[in-house]
Amino acid sequence: MNKYLQLDPWCIIEEGFNEDKQLKSESIFSIGNGKIGQRANFEEYYSGETMLGSYLGGVYFPEPVADNNRKIGYSSTNDKIINTPNWSVISVRLNDEKLDMATWDIKNFRRVLNMREGFLERTFEATSFKGHRIQVTAKRFLSMAETEIGAISFTIKSLNFEGRISFQPLIDGDVKNNISNFDEPFWNVLQTKTEQDVSFLWAQTKRNDFHFCAALTYVMYKNNELMNVNPTKIEKEKVAGFSIGADVKIGETVCLNKYVAITSSLNHSRDELTEYACNLSRAAKKKGWNLLFEKHSGAWSKIWSEMDIIIDSDLAAQQAIRYNIFQQLQTYNGNDERLNINPGGFSGEKLNSGTLWENEVVCVPFYLGNFTQNTARNLLNYRFRHLPKAIRNAEKLGFNKGAAFFPAATFNGNESLNDWELSFEEVHRNGLIAFSIFNYIRYTGDDNYLIECGLRELIAIARFWAQRVNFSEEKNKFVLTGVTGPNHYDSNVNNNWFTNFIAVWCLKFTAESIEKVKKIDVEKYENLISDIQFHQDEISTWKNIADNMYFPENENLGIYSQQDGFLDKFKIKVSEVPESQLPVFQNWTWDRILRSTLIKQPDVLLGMFLFNENFDRETISRNFDFYEPFTVHESAISYGIHSVIATNIGKEQKALEMFLRSARFDLDDLNNEVANGLHITGMAASWLAVVQGFGGMSVINNQLNFTPRIPLVWNAFSFSVHFRGNLLHLHFEKEKQIIRNIKGENIIIVMNNKPVNIEAGNQVEIAN
Amino acid sequence: MNKYLQLDPWCIIEEGFNEDKQLKSESIFSIGNGKIGQRANFEEYYSGETMLGSYLGGVYFPEPVADNNRKIGYSSTNDKIINTPNWSVISVRLNDEKLDMATWDIKNFRRVLNMREGFLERTFEATSFKGHRIQVTAKRFLSMAETEIGAISFTIKSLNFEGRISFQPLIDGDVKNNISNFDEPFWNVLQTKTEQDVSFLWAQTKRNDFHFCAALTYVMYKNNELMNVNPTKIEKEKVAGFSIGADVKIGETVCLNKYVAITSSLNHSRDELTEYACNLSRAAKKKGWNLLFEKHSGAWSKIWSEMDIIIDSDLAAQQAIRYNIFQQLQTYNGNDERLNINPGGFSGEKLNSGTLWENEVVCVPFYLGNFTQNTARNLLNYRFRHLPKAIRNAEKLGFNKGAAFFPAATFNGNESLNDWELSFEEVHRNGLIAFSIFNYIRYTGDDNYLIECGLRELIAIARFWAQRVNFSEEKNKFVLTGVTGPNHYDSNVNNNWFTNFIAVWCLKFTAESIEKVKKIDVEKYENLISDIQFHQDEISTWKNIADNMYFPENENLGIYSQQDGFLDKFKIKVSEVPESQLPVFQNWTWDRILRSTLIKQPDVLLGMFLFNENFDRETISRNFDFYEPFTVHESAISYGIHSVIATNIGKEQKALEMFLRSARFDLDDLNNEVANGLHITGMAASWLAVVQGFGGMSVINNQLNFTPRIPLVWNAFSFSVHFRGNLLHLHFEKEKQIIRNIKGENIIIVMNNKPVNIEAGNQVEIAN
Repeated sequence: MNKYLQLDPWCIIEEGFNEDKQLKSESIFSIGNGKIGQRANFEEYYSGETMLGSYLGGVYFPEPVADNNRKIGYSSTNDKIINTPNWSVISVRLNDEKLDMATWDIKNFRRVLNMREGFLERTFEATSFKGHRIQVTAKRFLSMAETEIGAISFTIKSLNFEGRISFQPLIDGDVKNNISNFDEPFWNVLQTKTEQDVSFLWAQTKRNDFHFCAALTYVMYKNNELMNVNPTKIEKEKVAGFSIGADVKIGETVCLNKYVAITSSLNHSRDELTEYACNLSRAAKKKGWNLLFEKHSGAWSKIWSEMDIIIDSDLAAQQAIRYNIFQQLQTYNGNDERLNINPGGFSGEKLNSGTLWENEVVCVPFYLGNFTQNTARNLLNYRFRHLPKAIRNAEKLGFNKGAAFFPAATFNGNESLNDWELSFEEVHRNGLIAFSIFNYIRYTGDDNYLIECGLRELIAIARFWAQRVNFSEEKNKFVLTGVTGPNHYDSNVNNNWFTNFIAVWCLKFTAESIEKVKKIDVEKYENLISDIQFHQDEISTWKNIADNMYFPENENLGIYSQQDGFLDKFKIKVSEVPESQLPVFQNWTWDRILRSTLIKQPDVLLGMFLFNENFDRETISRNFDFYEPFTVHESAISYGIHSVIATNIGKEQKALEMFLRSARFDLDDLNNEVANGLHITGMAASWLAVVQGFGGMSVINNQLNFTPRIPLVWNAFSFSVHFRGNLLHLHFEKEKQIIRNIKGENIIIVMNNKPVNIEAGNQVEIAN
Repeated sequence: MNKYLQLDPWCIIEEGFNEDKQLKSESIFSIGNGKIGQRANFEEYYSGETMLGSYLGGVYFPEPVADNNRKIGYSSTNDKIINTPNWSVISVRLNDEKLDMATWDIKNFRRVLNMREGFLERTFEATSFKGHRIQVTAKRFLSMAETEIGAISFTIKSLNFEGRISFQPLIDGDVKNNISNFDEPFWNVLQTKTEQDVSFLWAQTKRNDFHFCAALTYVMYKNNELMNVNPTKIEKEKVAGFSIGADVKIGETVCLNKYVAITSSLNHSRDELTEYACNLSRAAKKKGWNLLFEKHSGAWSKIWSEMDIIIDSDLAAQQAIRYNIFQQLQTYNGNDERLNINPGGFSGEKLNSGTLWENEVVCVPFYLGNFTQNTARNLLNYRFRHLPKAIRNAEKLGFNKGAAFFPAATFNGNESLNDWELSFEEVHRNGLIAFSIFNYIRYTGDDNYLIECGLRELIAIARFWAQRVNFSEEKNKFVLTGVTGPNHYDSNVNNNWFTNFIAVWCLKFTAESIEKVKKIDVEKYENLISDIQFHQDEISTWKNIADNMYFPENENLGIYSQQDGFLDKFKIKVSEVPESQLPVFQNWTWDRILRSTLIKQPDVLLGMFLFNENFDRETISRNFDFYEPFTVHESAISYGIHSVIATNIGKEQKALEMFLRSARFDLDDLNNEVANGLHITGMAASWLAVVQGFGGMSVINNQLNFTPRIPLVWNAFSFSVHFRGNLLHLHFEKEKQIIRNIKGENIIIVMNNKPVNIEAGNQVEIAN
């Protein structure tokens, strides 16, 4: 853990330059707008340790797998997020001295990520080798209003320097991925061109032919007056831009505003891409900084008006929960069904192998609560669009009859991971995709999704389970061998309790859903089953499996066993692991982790989180008390989920502790890896800890329920949720609850098991 | 299976050119001398499918691991066999037409690997596009007498051509490995130089600085008369050699003899390498073909006089067992303790990740039987020399107190594999290294090895087991979790029976060995235990573990269970797998293999093979009958070991069938992968099937025992073995046995449980 940032309700603040933490800061201070993202790399040259990172949602690179590691059924590529050409570069010179924070003398450094308005600002004083002193302010944002625009304002005031200050605003295509098998550039730069007013770089990914074009325009001011500059054009093989400068005296100020259009073939035809980008960049310049910023910060203002969470009297929690909402929204804001939440967002490469099952567990609920239903439906559509590929994937692995097996990680429906223990054996992801359909319909009441998409997916998933189980004569039960459960700190195990549980749940839910669709729209049902050649006797096979599944238990301990043989493992609690060996994934060899009882994230407990209503409180408590002490929470979603469970079983102190760790996972770098990128999925989990945990939100029989359990040290907290056309604002104090019906018709909700009617536009106050 | 080769007692013969099988033939017809090896690539240009392969024993390349696949505890490199510069090239031209078997019209092709004399010969007629016809004979060998010399004689007779026939004998350094992560050349060519009489190429491996130099000389004959030629020198960046030619008329013959010295820094100082190679090559030329060949074939003649196995009346078996002995000897002949048997020999890259535990199981016994004790001791020394690295490897994986963990595969004591399920979890290899010490001493009586080396190794191994087990409260026993057993078609399992068994055996044998050494040489013992800080109470820890180890069993079936949960697997026998899906490792995805009961090679049965005397015949039979039907024998050692067991339990037909498959594994390409290289380790297993299986050889109380069980269809078989200073020749017929005491003193052996005295130089005949 490493706390070097200031507490503040609306900002992340670094006071004084922590050069040794620059890699962490680059992740933490990263900005994005749901389509484009950028690590907090400095605009100017920096000779210190840095990891460049510019990203485009939906753009990835299919890197070939090294021969040695191939297995039958693997994809031919490991797909990974790709570092795009860097649009943020502005080199700075005082005469012939190049500004470099690593070697110049830096004072009064302050870096602020302003979450309310969505910008990153850096101010500092710098002294060169020759003793020239300047004051610098660099501010940038990626527009939430116009999602292909990035803007940077770079201001220098001379404190003692007389001479020429020059800027080189550039697009740099000479970039590589930091993590690659073959250390090769992934981009072909197709063209660089610099005209009088605009400069662009056009590039293409090597194997899958994404096109990218960034075009830049600029304006320059001296002492706040627009300058008429005569730029030198830069048009190198992999770099495009301008060089411009101004002569200054002591006390004078120069400012460069750089406007960049960042575009790709994801949204535009290849033929028109460069022209489109140039025009967009020109238009941005025409609008100018103030108007662009106003529209951008206005978009953030609207977001906060609907999605803010206020925690009264806990500044660390307040800052962190806003940070998590902020980064979640910077990563994905829900209007493009081709995109999904990359687990590392736009902040690094390492965690970004594509969409994971964790999204179904924590992100879909976040978007259900914070947006109207179409946004979550887009996330569901993302999987539905991949169904044909999931069926082909299952075929490749030896399944048949239309069984589907969704990928462990993906950018486009293809498996992007080639680790057999995950890609082949982490089968519960299929169950979580089914759960997400159930959860979406429970929350929205949108049966139409079930009819149009969901049932087809569910049947394909049920067919997978029906083939994946086998009957053990020894146990006289169905079993699931060779799986990797949610824990991830064990592999290739037999009878993971959670996997067996969700397999049975899928079979039952699919059978129920068939009945439901048959009732609602028999014609569509008939069409579907004829299309996928579904036979009624499949249902009896499913029923037989569901009725005769084996579940590992330990009766003495009164717990479900995570898997067969779990209790044979080397028994060690987290409290017994020396601090210096944590996180274990960075300190222990893999076999030692596998052989120990240490657990990465909820496994048995994930079942109790998702299906809370199926277990009595005592059972959940016993399993929580048994498993939590073994849990190292080295997955970002772990603390948030444990916090919700802890609240549900009345462990208030534990719930708060887990929530704080969940919320500050990256800000305090609990996993010692924030340098590699943020944990976006975990951020959604911290939102759940507030809303489902402390807020006690659930949907029962089409009604929204709350059973608020406010942590002792908090005075109050409040949040908003969308529910079936309503937008509600919930404010919970110890003595009372205030619920406002901001948008939508009258609504009846259930507060602490009592129905409460809230009229449209009104609020209700309930005393405890 | 693909039989295209002729049966012959002493030769492997291909009649007619099978272009589609050239990759297979390149492996099968490969030659070597224990130090250098060469696939049967054609000397001349070949535009068809080919995989170049020239290898040097002990020379490997440490290839970096792709970032994505790194885990804590992994080596930074995957070490692999390296394809060296190609010494065998002789390009051939008729005027301007380049000889190419892929495009010229080829007739009367015949390729012979002569095992008796150890050479490869190819004869054919070829017609060019222009209709020019020639007859070609190319013969080559790698000298067993002078192990740095390769020689090729290339003869062309003009059938209808008048014009110039030219040869380019070359050393080609422009080579790559076929399997590499980064597709980069592993060699820097340091120098090419061509003088009047000699040409050389000097190269260096990129990361670990092995130096290699091949120097060539030649002579050319026309119509059997030495020519005085004026060569054109070739000295390119990566190629060195000559171009020489002769004008021929119809019916005339030209012949080029190429003599190559193939040398490395393994045996010579880098400074003198090129000079040494040039002189050696000149000396070879001076000796001339006949003398070189005579010494070479003489060496083979001596080998066969001691190591031949004769199988009367089964030509397929006869050819195959000789082939296996031949390739075993070509791979390793035992006088360099820095070398070991690479599982793929000198015939390819894919199987060659370094020394594996299979060597201890089947190769050490082969060398014990076929050589005097120093050869096997060299193999043991190989491991002993690696002990300090094995201790460091164990430390890296979290063990302490001098525990050793030998690598899964190695060239130099470092782990060359980075697959966690093997490198970290395939722990039984430690047990087999201990077994090999036991087996060596049992066979040779060489207690000195135990005192000087063995005990130190055994204690380090026992210390490993003592830390690797943990106590299961649930089972009230010690358990071994997270292991990969010998089967290899399952990973990360708990309580693999074989692993638990050999762990206990190691602990007991180490404790016994301590007592033994203490008795024989108390001073050396005291020195050792003080050096390694050994405490007597470690022995009681070992005893406690040995006495309380858990072994999985199934009482109903009367078998040991391969591991916990084995019987939950999807039950499928090999007979139920469609032919088209075999071998499964080439057709099934990895998870499907893991989830099925299919077994790659003996696992429970390996224990019964190694410790035959510890189990009654009924127990072995029950386990054999249960496990063999699940066994796909996709490891080359599997058939041989099963054959021995089958003989022991009286399943004669099964034993013969398994032996034939073992012996002809590569000749008939049972695993559909001979194109990638031979399975040298499996060849030793087929020798064991004859000697330990049908011959019933064992050592009991320092005496050699035989209980011959001759297969019904055989008339007789015979073999020789070295035993403690004696060389015995055994000839077994159905009616009688003849044992000759070829070398050594009088000896008493035990034939069918009866002692038989055989005087020095005499023979004894025993009627049944």
